[in-house]
Amino acid sequence: MGVVLNIEDGKREAPSIKLLLDLTAADMGRVNELILAKAGSDVEMIPEVANHLISSGGKRLRPMVTLAAAQMFGYAGDGHVKLATSVEFMHTATLLHDDVVDESGMRRGKKTARMIWGNQASVLVGDFLLGQAFRMMVDVGSLDALDILSTAASIIAEGEVMQLSAAQNLETTEDEYFAVIKAKTAALFSAAAEVGPVIASATRNDRAALRSYGMNLGLAFQLVDDALDYGGSSKELGKNVGDDFREGKVTLPVILAYRRGTAAEREFWKRAIEDNVVDDAALEKAIGLLIRHGAIADTITRAGHFGEIARDALAPLKSSPQKTALIDVIDFCISRVA
Amino acid sequence: MGVVLNIEDGKREAPSIKLLLDLTAADMGRVNELILAKAGSDVEMIPEVANHLISSGGKRLRPMVTLAAAQMFGYAGDGHVKLATSVEFMHTATLLHDDVVDESGMRRGKKTARMIWGNQASVLVGDFLLGQAFRMMVDVGSLDALDILSTAASIIAEGEVMQLSAAQNLETTEDEYFAVIKAKTAALFSAAAEVGPVIASATRNDRAALRSYGMNLGLAFQLVDDALDYGGSSKELGKNVGDDFREGKVTLPVILAYRRGTAAEREFWKRAIEDNVVDDAALEKAIGLLIRHGAIADTITRAGHFGEIARDALAPLKSSPQKTALIDVIDFCISRVA
Repeated sequence: MGVVLNIEDGKREAPSIKLLLDLTAADMGRVNELILAKAGSDVEMIPEVANHLISSGGKRLRPMVTLAAAQMFGYAGDGHVKLATSVEFMHTATLLHDDVVDESGMRRGKKTARMIWGNQASVLVGDFLLGQAFRMMVDVGSLDALDILSTAASIIAEGEVMQLSAAQNLETTEDEYFAVIKAKTAALFSAAAEVGPVIASATRNDRAALRSYGMNLGLAFQLVDDALDYGGSSKELGKNVGDDFREGKVTLPVILAYRRGTAAEREFWKRAIEDNVVDDAALEKAIGLLIRHGAIADTITRAGHFGEIARDALAPLKSSPQKTALIDVIDFCISRVA
Repeated sequence: MGVVLNIEDGKREAPSIKLLLDLTAADMGRVNELILAKAGSDVEMIPEVANHLISSGGKRLRPMVTLAAAQMFGYAGDGHVKLATSVEFMHTATLLHDDVVDESGMRRGKKTARMIWGNQASVLVGDFLLGQAFRMMVDVGSLDALDILSTAASIIAEGEVMQLSAAQNLETTEDEYFAVIKAKTAALFSAAAEVGPVIASATRNDRAALRSYGMNLGLAFQLVDDALDYGGSSKELGKNVGDDFREGKVTLPVILAYRRGTAAEREFWKRAIEDNVVDDAALEKAIGLLIRHGAIADTITRAGHFGEIARDALAPLKSSPQKTALIDVIDFCISRVA
């Protein structure tokens, strides 16, 4: 399982990304410098808006995956730092645009940029960061990496439109839901992982392994996120519980509970999700229904399924600290919710 | 002047882009096919939104400039068609985002996409088209062209943020205004022109000539556009007159009239632009002030200045139908307002 066994007391340590953090610490220092430099502009509003989100404490999993994936194949150069920064900028641009599209007020416990600087600034600074991401990729000069990341950019936007079209539609099938999260979340994880071996001139098989690892890690990651939004498997609710519910998002827990529910329950979901009747009592009732139908537990089980595929994708690769670290990421993601 | 003299009656014909249209007709047929193909998606909303704007009858000047600039240096291949389509997609993405940022209701006499499908769809379909633009560039495989166009993408977004920061500020200087239009409009014309010689492996000097031509053509184009928004030099008002005024945009005509005006006139401009008191009477008064202070005429004169620079940028190049056609574009742009 890639999880360290603590021999002294025979107890498993909680999965962590400590190894990944250690292996990428030096490179991430350079990524962080590059983030500051490339989010800079004489137009003051640009670094203000960009840094608001950039400094808000995301885990920066995606760029760390890129760095570790490049190290894994012996890459020596600075292209992986630029690509990792590009990946983080693409992610940041997506968040800025997402918050406008979802009309979100809070992200990571802070006001969203759109609440402070307006929708306009969020759209345009997102565009700027996307432009800067492409410039950095061009600077690296790998047409293969450019192909992978520009394709991901199209697919992410396509997934967001797909989500918009499916919004507040409780008849969304599980397959349609997977198509959305594959495009809007997993495509970037997949690209982030694949550009590592690409820039290191690794083999086709190595590229395919990392691509598959990233895709399935991304799916697991999003499923866990969607489960966490309803408190995960614990009954103690974190501070952001219910955001998806309040925004009328049809995520897998809701899809499962709706399909498994009685006619009366379906009426409840329609009122909540389609008519947006989403007070605290409704949220409490929703969580009760999700638990009763095993919808959260099964969402986590599905995440485990993709986690296993991600693990097997890396199985043929020879042992390395980076391989261990990337497998730890899977366990860490899933342990967030277990 | 690059304008055809009609010998029979000794009268000049009105400048036109007929030669450009003829020279690029076959290639533009392929551009239009590619536009349809690359704006396609299984996610229905994407082609709907994209085609609404794409089919709304823009002149497609930018892609024609790319095609003619590539032909001029003997390019043989299909890369110029892909780059021209990328340029048009970048332009379309910018318009979609602009309409969200400006909260515009109408464009080219049609409802804007945001009025029909909402801001969300406009932001995301813009992102999709930008992603598709980069994929086509990557497909062409010229890192130089990628560098030029990705740099333009960053600069355009930077210019839009700059415009946002300067919005409704009557103290904006003429230099600040030029910095904005250079970034938000001229940078794409410049990139559109430069990628022609780049893909044709022309010399550094040829690249610089076309880059400078595009930059100055773009400045002239935007100045003419800003003059036309107040009816140009004619007293008959076209149907879109006053849009900038109603949106409180500080364009060059307003900057000149404000700086040249009396204290009382400045109060009027502040009420109109900063406090947004913009009824029909105010628009009529504004046009009267613009004319009295020669603000429209001088905006057109400035456009002529940049037109001359664009013309001289091409002067050293040997004669060709494409060179004549590109010079015609300058005359055509300026004649729109004369």
